[in-house]
Amino acid sequence: MKFTEKLANAAGKNHSLVCVGLDTDPALVPEKMGVFEFNKAIIDATADLVCAFKPNFAFYEAMGIAGMEALKKTIDYIPKNIPVIADAKRGDIGNTSRAYARAIFDYYGCDAVTVSPYLGFDSVEPFVNYSDKGVFILCRTSNAGAVDFQSLLCNVPPVPGHLFEIVARKAAEWNKHGNVGLVVGATYPEELGLIRQNYPDMLLLIPGIGAQGGDIEVTLRNGLDRQKAGVIINSSRQILYASKGKDFAQAARKAAGDLRDKINQYR
Amino acid sequence: MKFTEKLANAAGKNHSLVCVGLDTDPALVPEKMGVFEFNKAIIDATADLVCAFKPNFAFYEAMGIAGMEALKKTIDYIPKNIPVIADAKRGDIGNTSRAYARAIFDYYGCDAVTVSPYLGFDSVEPFVNYSDKGVFILCRTSNAGAVDFQSLLCNVPPVPGHLFEIVARKAAEWNKHGNVGLVVGATYPEELGLIRQNYPDMLLLIPGIGAQGGDIEVTLRNGLDRQKAGVIINSSRQILYASKGKDFAQAARKAAGDLRDKINQYR
Repeated sequence: MKFTEKLANAAGKNHSLVCVGLDTDPALVPEKMGVFEFNKAIIDATADLVCAFKPNFAFYEAMGIAGMEALKKTIDYIPKNIPVIADAKRGDIGNTSRAYARAIFDYYGCDAVTVSPYLGFDSVEPFVNYSDKGVFILCRTSNAGAVDFQSLLCNVPPVPGHLFEIVARKAAEWNKHGNVGLVVGATYPEELGLIRQNYPDMLLLIPGIGAQGGDIEVTLRNGLDRQKAGVIINSSRQILYASKGKDFAQAARKAAGDLRDKINQYR
Repeated sequence: MKFTEKLANAAGKNHSLVCVGLDTDPALVPEKMGVFEFNKAIIDATADLVCAFKPNFAFYEAMGIAGMEALKKTIDYIPKNIPVIADAKRGDIGNTSRAYARAIFDYYGCDAVTVSPYLGFDSVEPFVNYSDKGVFILCRTSNAGAVDFQSLLCNVPPVPGHLFEIVARKAAEWNKHGNVGLVVGATYPEELGLIRQNYPDMLLLIPGIGAQGGDIEVTLRNGLDRQKAGVIINSSRQILYASKGKDFAQAARKAAGDLRDKINQYR
């Protein structure tokens, strides 16, 4: 099934725009618990409250090969009706991006991926060519350093724009299969509003609420499309580590449910 | 030992600016040969002719966990006097980049890494903070799509510049530990010359000769520093697949030696 359909189905069934970011840090899971075991409990506790899961590959890579095994098992364990977004921020020259796409879509079996735009079209194309898969291009990221380059004002005909706007413009051009979305951080609500205004139908993956400080109401007001959807609101640490004790899974369920309800309040 | 010293020692001892890119594709190695076995033969055949090895993580990731095992074994096998550059083009928000840095430097034990600048300072800082390790920031990449964003003219005080120039400017600012270099493709010789002119002491990692079409003489003329060094010239496919037969290792040795000698001709 196409990523976009799978996402719409999960979002509809669970009445949720919440994505749980599986950024599992072995130092933060309860003692003597393995990463996969922890993820399994989080998935069991939240799968009926989310529209997607998003493992960030970095946290698994930091654990070496055992981490990649935990990642593979985690992805395989996620119920088939919930899409998996590989947060990997890959991007390389064409033949190399093809290898990354094979890793993420064919080997790990993810439904979507985040990619970095710096290398331009041929670095993004191999991902986009998997027309059933989703491709989220980094546009305006949620971190402080986002301003270093993404805010630069660029002289581009016909209309000058900030780099993140030019990236969005290109992403829209590249969206031949309807499978391209953008990553726009909740920590930059004005930029989020601008992107939504200019791309009313683009799917937006929005990190940055919770630990990073983005406000839910403002994010929804600025990010929702005309169907009161079109956004995936990610939360990682706030859900995974809602409790450090044995009740972590129940606490995660409560945090995910509360976030879902709070978001739905503003739809 | 610091990456920069290890590199200078290897380059001096082997009288070489050649880096062999270990972009091993299982479809291109001789029949019935494993990826690690192939890499081992390439390393044995070329280790006295190079200044560095550069495995590109994408090709190993595409093979899944078995690929990561082959990558780890390959890195461990590389002689300790030859630095290993992890071509991974990572970059994420701070706490995530820290996890990527742990993966590449602590787990895989690489001496240097390539990183993508799109997320700005806090995405690069965790790598740079490993002051003994080298960090090559993507500046002007070798692919056709490089023009999409890297060529944009940005209004930055005091002097406007193309995005790749602004990236270079920032990279120079971030180079507090003397461990930051730039990736500049041989396929854009004018841009390479401009970067060298503005940053006379910056270490440049140069892909794009060989299969991608960059010219060696022009690359050297535009890229060398005042000590007739300061560049790492990468070649991957042209060396790895110099022969498709059983003599692949000897053919790789010949290709690496020829490239080394051709480069030294222009120093």
